[in-house]
Formats: sequence, structure tokens, C-alpha cells
Amino acid sequence: MTNTPAAQPKPQTAKTAIAPTRAENYAEWYQQVVRASDMAELSGVRGCMIIKPWGYGIWEQMQRDLDRRFKETGHDNCYFPLFIPLSYFQKEADHVEGFAKEMAVVTHHRLKSDDGKLTPDGELEEPLVVRPTSEMVIGTAMAKWIKSYRDLPLLINQWANVVRWEMRPRILLRTAEFLWQEGHTAHETYDDAMKETRVMLDVYRDFAEQVLALPVIPGEKTPNERFPGAVNTYTIEAMMQDGRALQAGTSHYLGQNFSKSLNIQFQNREGVLEFAHTTSWGLSTRMLGALVMAHSDDNGLRTPPRVAPWQVVIVPITRNDADKQAVMDYCQKIKADLQAQVYAGQPLRVKLDARDIAGADKRWEWIKKGAPLVVEIGARDIEGGKVCVTRRDRLDQGKQFVLRDDFIAAVAGELASIQQTLFDEALAFQKTRIVTNIKTLADFEAYFGKDADNSFAGGQGFVRAKWSGDEASLGILDKYGVTIRCVPFDQDGQTGTCVLTGAPATQDVIFARAY
Amino acid sequence: MTNTPAAQPKPQTAKTAIAPTRAENYAEWYQQVVRASDMAELSGVRGCMIIKPWGYGIWEQMQRDLDRRFKETGHDNCYFPLFIPLSYFQKEADHVEGFAKEMAVVTHHRLKSDDGKLTPDGELEEPLVVRPTSEMVIGTAMAKWIKSYRDLPLLINQWANVVRWEMRPRILLRTAEFLWQEGHTAHETYDDAMKETRVMLDVYRDFAEQVLALPVIPGEKTPNERFPGAVNTYTIEAMMQDGRALQAGTSHYLGQNFSKSLNIQFQNREGVLEFAHTTSWGLSTRMLGALVMAHSDDNGLRTPPRVAPWQVVIVPITRNDADKQAVMDYCQKIKADLQAQVYAGQPLRVKLDARDIAGADKRWEWIKKGAPLVVEIGARDIEGGKVCVTRRDRLDQGKQFVLRDDFIAAVAGELASIQQTLFDEALAFQKTRIVTNIKTLADFEAYFGKDADNSFAGGQGFVRAKWSGDEASLGILDKYGVTIRCVPFDQDGQTGTCVLTGAPATQDVIFARAY
Repeated sequence: MTNTPAAQPKPQTAKTAIAPTRAENYAEWYQQVVRASDMAELSGVRGCMIIKPWGYGIWEQMQRDLDRRFKETGHDNCYFPLFIPLSYFQKEADHVEGFAKEMAVVTHHRLKSDDGKLTPDGELEEPLVVRPTSEMVIGTAMAKWIKSYRDLPLLINQWANVVRWEMRPRILLRTAEFLWQEGHTAHETYDDAMKETRVMLDVYRDFAEQVLALPVIPGEKTPNERFPGAVNTYTIEAMMQDGRALQAGTSHYLGQNFSKSLNIQFQNREGVLEFAHTTSWGLSTRMLGALVMAHSDDNGLRTPPRVAPWQVVIVPITRNDADKQAVMDYCQKIKADLQAQVYAGQPLRVKLDARDIAGADKRWEWIKKGAPLVVEIGARDIEGGKVCVTRRDRLDQGKQFVLRDDFIAAVAGELASIQQTLFDEALAFQKTRIVTNIKTLADFEAYFGKDADNSFAGGQGFVRAKWSGDEASLGILDKYGVTIRCVPFDQDGQTGTCVLTGAPATQDVIFARAY
Repeated sequence: MTNTPAAQPKPQTAKTAIAPTRAENYAEWYQQVVRASDMAELSGVRGCMIIKPWGYGIWEQMQRDLDRRFKETGHDNCYFPLFIPLSYFQKEADHVEGFAKEMAVVTHHRLKSDDGKLTPDGELEEPLVVRPTSEMVIGTAMAKWIKSYRDLPLLINQWANVVRWEMRPRILLRTAEFLWQEGHTAHETYDDAMKETRVMLDVYRDFAEQVLALPVIPGEKTPNERFPGAVNTYTIEAMMQDGRALQAGTSHYLGQNFSKSLNIQFQNREGVLEFAHTTSWGLSTRMLGALVMAHSDDNGLRTPPRVAPWQVVIVPITRNDADKQAVMDYCQKIKADLQAQVYAGQPLRVKLDARDIAGADKRWEWIKKGAPLVVEIGARDIEGGKVCVTRRDRLDQGKQFVLRDDFIAAVAGELASIQQTLFDEALAFQKTRIVTNIKTLADFEAYFGKDADNSFAGGQGFVRAKWSGDEASLGILDKYGVTIRCVPFDQDGQTGTCVLTGAPATQDVIFARAY
């Protein structure tokens, strides 16, 4: 693409669209970016959010990409009941213990009016829990469906809403209700189930990196951080711009725990009854929050092109009614030409913003939403055969005036470049914030102790160090709000000393504050 | 396509896969088709179903097609909370009265364990209703979002689960929880809102006819059948194979009722505050039940090609390990060639069923599921350069042996032909079952009175006759379980006599039993 610098590129360093800035108050900056990008808002219903068109549009792109990956790896979509009878939970003590404190419970099935005041009526014989996750209800169905090894593997996914009552909700990241997908599979052997668990974690890793431009650290959770009822929990951990971790997707090997509780048995190849090995794995709308925290700047969200509902937004600039029709016609033609281009295997998603408001206001609205490319076109541009392009990841370059045909020829490459830039920037940030030279408790406490105030530098980063595996030592972490995020898959295998206790330790773990 | 009749075409008239047949027991036949097609099953959770891969796959195709139509007509997808505070319902008396008897109510937010027995704990200050529909929660958001006429029209759709407590659930048709989409829009004027209401009904009509191969009668509901809180309710009514009606989609003009209850006001073009005119419209997974009831025969479902998860299923027939690899390779090649074909603007959806079970069993499984084309391929077919094709809508023709390349060249046309056949058959059935010569109450009672026993002929059909509009006359209908389904849009405008009262009447209505 041949770029001609704009006559007066405005430097973006001074004035920014989001107040406060990241550096001033990270937590508040996050809320303001969510608001400015118009992705979502909290509703009048306690802890529940409304996902608005730009946020839901990004989620739809995530769904489309993940769903293709799930189907390519042999999974079928199903839909299971929202409600789970209380008695189901009696069957799995560890599982219910993990979720009991955050369950919404339905106890009545109608309303009555008492002097004009509505009250619940028709008490249920057995209360129903609104699903916090669906192991119990899907496992119950599996027990019915699976009879022989020929029925295995059983590979199911569901797109659904789930409810986990949150005492301290935070929009997109932690809400009482959220949307997710949950995979549930049953297998003949440990090897098959473990392979599935790891394959699906790798699907998440690849999706996060390639589609969300989010570098992640894959690894295993320590026993105290496992999913309730799981034998092994694997995770991908992403770093936000305040150095805190965000668990971006998890995949669980459930062993025979749930199959024993729910009687998921099959006749094996020798004709003997055996309990199946099951797995589950999930990824949710909190990834929308991760996108905001990882890719936004002080002018709003920067949406990765792979998931942007609109990858190119055309803003017509009309000065008077006389030039309006000509400009609109020209924009329509460019829109059609852009839609004929292909990026990441899909026709380009192009929006022509024809609303009757000032062009400059529209441009800033799309910058705050993070549309990857904003193209302004006015009568003067048409005369010059040019378009005026803003690349969201290069706001410091200001507007670029480009020949119309050059722009169309280069647009797919530009989107690929923006996608790569977001990933590279996030990876560079992550690398500078993974600390590997902390070897003693004193250094560890100095690192996490100095910024416990939630400021931009509050989380600081990830400490990668040896840990002995002694759970008693985790008490030290509570003081700093730090947890072990995972045992990364890439281990050096060397024996060193545990950063918390000084005891001999072989495994490397990631310590961090987390969302 | 050049067809060679199979050597020994088996007549399908004698033995059928579904018992009882439609003629023997329609209600039980319906249950058995749902079971045999493996679309869905009732769960252990009262009134709630599990939608299995074949049923969910059809729903996904419906969603894809409808979602495209909604976006093309300018609607954005959002997601709103599952829970609606009780106080919201206090605001709209008509609306709450319509739904109060079927609302699931959340009253607690955690569980506690009493001597090992789980019980609800943490009573909520205000109970939450699990949404039966979302006018109240979306309208509340609209009141916040809309300030000026510039914010209108506001055109929103949501894909969601809803709960309406059913005392007599019937799988797919009437379940406590179901999936649907609900459109919610707000407009400046009556004209704009009414246009939207009718445009969306027409989207449903076209979708039902073109995609589901389901002829429908569009019309307006009589006042007593309106959506609770609506000013006008429009509907498309489909006829099932027992002559009963099924309401297939509704679109409501809500007037200013909800905007007044919820304060959805805007500053109009003259700067004066006005209440918006709102609409809502929905279509649900009960359409899966409609497909079963409209298109199935005594061998199971016949899935319309436009919504079939797999339009062509290839069944390899292998006699021994020696020919297995050659047959599988040949099948893979045909699959790839078929996937390169296009039907209804989409690449063909082709399944190669490589499971290790007998070919004949697989064929019958896909016939019961209603895969439009089943192709069997064995070593002998490969030698002859042929494939053995079963067209689901022409089981009476048995298997057809067709040259491989001819089959591939003709396959898109065959799918179009199957789609058309299903529509034509349903339309022909509907036409024979719409009775227009019933003019007196005696004839009316004779028609609906003779088969009130739910047998195959139980509903018989639709009676199209004049009705005076006198609601007192509707009492006569209760005895026969008949309702007025709609006032069809096509009216002759002639004055005649009301079939129920003999009074002068101008409007034609449709009387029928309904699901």
C-alpha cells in the first residue's frame, strides 16, 4: 500500500478518548473502555449484563470459529436442560462443594397476586438449580446413552448460558450469568480421554493466539486450583496489561469420578462392564473482557480483525446535500469491492455507516469500538481517486491518504498485519513481564508486596519460579492475593529450590495475581 | 439423472419402520418418529428436553437462515439477562397476567448442606423470574438507550432459552424450557412499527415456506388470542398431518403499551417527548416438532434439504477387509466431489458414515432421520461406475442405481426436487383439509364433533367460515377444543352469516384444533 502522510497528522499522545488512562487507574479505565466501545453494560438485574451489538458481534465471530474447530475434531452440538434437580448434586460431593455457594435455585413455578403484590406460588417438590455447569445433567444422559464400547467416544458440545452467583460482579469478566460453550466427552480408556483433554486445550491455545491475538501460557493447574471433581485441570493463562493473569480456557480430565457417581458404564471389548473416562472443557464470554484488557489502549478497544464484526468501516463525509448522493454512490461501490476481498478464508465484513451525524463523530465512535480500518471518503477524495484510512493499531500515524485501488488490493494484507501487530505487542508485553530471576521468598515478597493497590502496575507480572508442591506453603500467597496460575508444559526438569520454602523443587510454576 | 431401477425394488407399503402408524395412533406415532429420528428426548428434569445432534443440527440450519434474514432487515443481535426481577412485572398488568401461571421463580442464591442433605439457602431480597419472554427486560434497557428520534428505529434480536412452566409437556412442541429468537424493536410512529410487525411476519412466512417446506396461512389473531399486552398479534398457522393447526411464528404490534409501562420515550422531530411504538416477534424450537408432524411418514422424518444437517449420507458397503480400503477411498472421493456442489447458495453438507456396523442398519437409521439422499457404495458398484441412491421422499421407488458422474452432476437438482416435493405434498394436504362449505352451527358441530378422540383424523382440518366477532359466541368452541387460529389476510370482503351465531358477518376466520 502506498501511503501519503496526511497534511496535518494529529499526534494522539496528548488527548485520548478514554479517561482515566490505563496508567492513571487501570480498573476504572477498563470500565470506561467497555462503555466507550459499547460492548456491554450492567443491567438492572443484579450481577447480570446486557451484551450489546458490538460485544455480541465479536462473540458471534468467536463462536463461529470455535464451532468449526469443535466439529472438525468430531464433536456434535446438543442442548441440555437449564435446570438441574437438587438430587443430582447429591451424587458428587466434591463437585457440589465447589459450586454450592454460587447457585441460583428455582423453588416455585408460578406467581400469584396478593392485593396487587406479586409473590411466588406453587412450590416445587424438588428445587431446581440453574446450571452453573452441566456435568451432572449431561453425565446423567450419557449413562443412559452409553451401553458398549461401540458408543464411545461420545463427543458433545453445548452453547449455553450458565449462572454462578457472584458477590462482586465485574462486567464481562465475572457476572452472575454468562454465555459459554461446554464440551463433554466419554471415552473407553485413560489414554483416549487424556488425549481429548489435551487436544481441546490445544484448540483453545491456537484459537486464543491465532484468532484473539492473545499469547497464552498452557499448563496444568495445581491440585488446589482444579475444577471441582476433576483429576487434572489444564488451562491457558493470558496476561492482561496490568500484569495480572486471566484464565482464558480450561480443559478437565475427570477420570472415572463422574462416571462412578452417575453410573456411566460400558461393556468393553472383552465384554466386561467398565466405567467410562470423561472430560469437560469450556470457554466463555469472559474472553470479551480479556480482549478489552489485553488489546485496548487509551483510545478504546482495538478489536482483532479475525473477530471484528466489521473489519472495515466506511464513513462518508458530506458537506452539503449536493455532494451527498455522489459520495454515497462512491462509498457503495467501494463497499462492494471490499466485500469481494477475502481475509482469513472469509469475505471481508464491511460496514457503510450512513447515519445522519457528523463524520468526525462517527470516526471516533469506530476508533473507540476498535474497528481495524476506518475509511473516510469525501468529495475531495473522490476527485483525487483516494481514500483516507485510519489503521486502529497505528493511530499515531494519523490518517493516511491512499489510492482507492491500492487500498482495495492491499486491504486483506493490512488486516493480517493488524492482527499480527496486536499479537506481537501482547507477546512483547508478556515477555517483559515474566520474571524468572526471583529465587527467594524475600525477593518474591518484595515483588508482589510493593504494588498491592490495584494500580496499573499493581499486578506487575508473572513470576516463574520453582515450587515444591507443598500446599501448606500456599498460605504465604494469600497475603498478596497471588495464586499459582499453572505448571507450564515447558519445564526445564532441573532441580532447584522452592521460592516459597527453600526446599528442593523441580517444577516451574507461574505465580500471579489474577482476574 | 439416468435411473436404472434396482433389480428387486422392495415395496415399502407393507412393513414400515414406525409403529404405530399415523393412521393407527397419531399422537404415539409422533413420539415414535421423534425417537426414531433421534432428534430429541425428554430428560429426567420435569418438562425439559435434551435436543440431540440431529435435532440441534436442524435448529442450527434454521438459525443460520433466519439470522441472515434478520441482519438483512437491519437487526442487531444482543443478549439480555435470563432473570427478570419480580418488580418489573408489576408494571404491566396484562402482560404478567398472561404469564404468571407458568413462571419459574428463583428465590435463593446458594445451597447448604443439612446433615448431608442439600437445601436452598441465601434467600433473595427480590425473587427473580426466569424469562418467559423478554419484553420487560429489553423494554427497560430501551427506555435507557432511547433519547431522541435519531435513536429510532432500534432493531434488536436475541437468540435465547426461555421457560414457561408446562403442566402437560409434549416433546419439541410444548416444553418447560425451549430455545427461540425474539425480536424487539422500537419506532417513532404507528406506521413504522406496524410495517416492521408485518415485514417480520412475512420473513417468517417466507422462511416457513421456502426453507421448512411448510405452507402456512398468515393472518391476524382475534383479540382473545393476542399476546399478553399486544395491540395486534399476527401469526402464521401451519397444518399438521392430523389436520390440527400449529402456530409457527408470531409478530406483535405492542402499540405504546410497553413504552408507557416502561417509559420508553423519545424527543420527536418537533422536540416533543413521545412514547415509542414497539414490536416483538418470535420463532422457537417447536418448529422442529412442526417439521416432524408435517413431513414425516410411517418410516420416520423426511428432513427438508434446506435444513438437513447432512443432505447426502454415504454408506460404504464392505463385505470383507480386502475390499474395505478400496471402497472407503472411493467414497472419500465422491464425498469431496459432492462437497464441491452447491445447493441453495451453500456447499453441500455430506456425511460419510464410516461406523463399524452393518450397511443396511446404517441406511435405515438415515432413512428414519430423514436424510434427503442416502448413497450406498460397495465393491460391485465401483466396478460398474455406479452408486445406489435412496431418495427419502420416494422410498416407494426403492434403490436407484445411477452412474456416479450423473449423480454428482444432478445432486443439487435432486435436493431442490425433494424440497419442492415436501412443500407440494404439504400444500396439497392442506388444500384438501381446508373446508369452506360449512355455513351453519349444525354443520360446524357435526364436523368437529365426530372425531374428538385425538385419533389420526381427530383434528380433521381447518374450517374457513364467517365469524361475527362476538366473543360470547366463542363458548361454543370450548366443547370441541376448537379455537380461531386467525383472520387470514386474504379476505373476500363479502358479508355472509356467522357460522356460530347466524348473525351478519364479514370476516373470514380459520377454526381448528391446535397444538
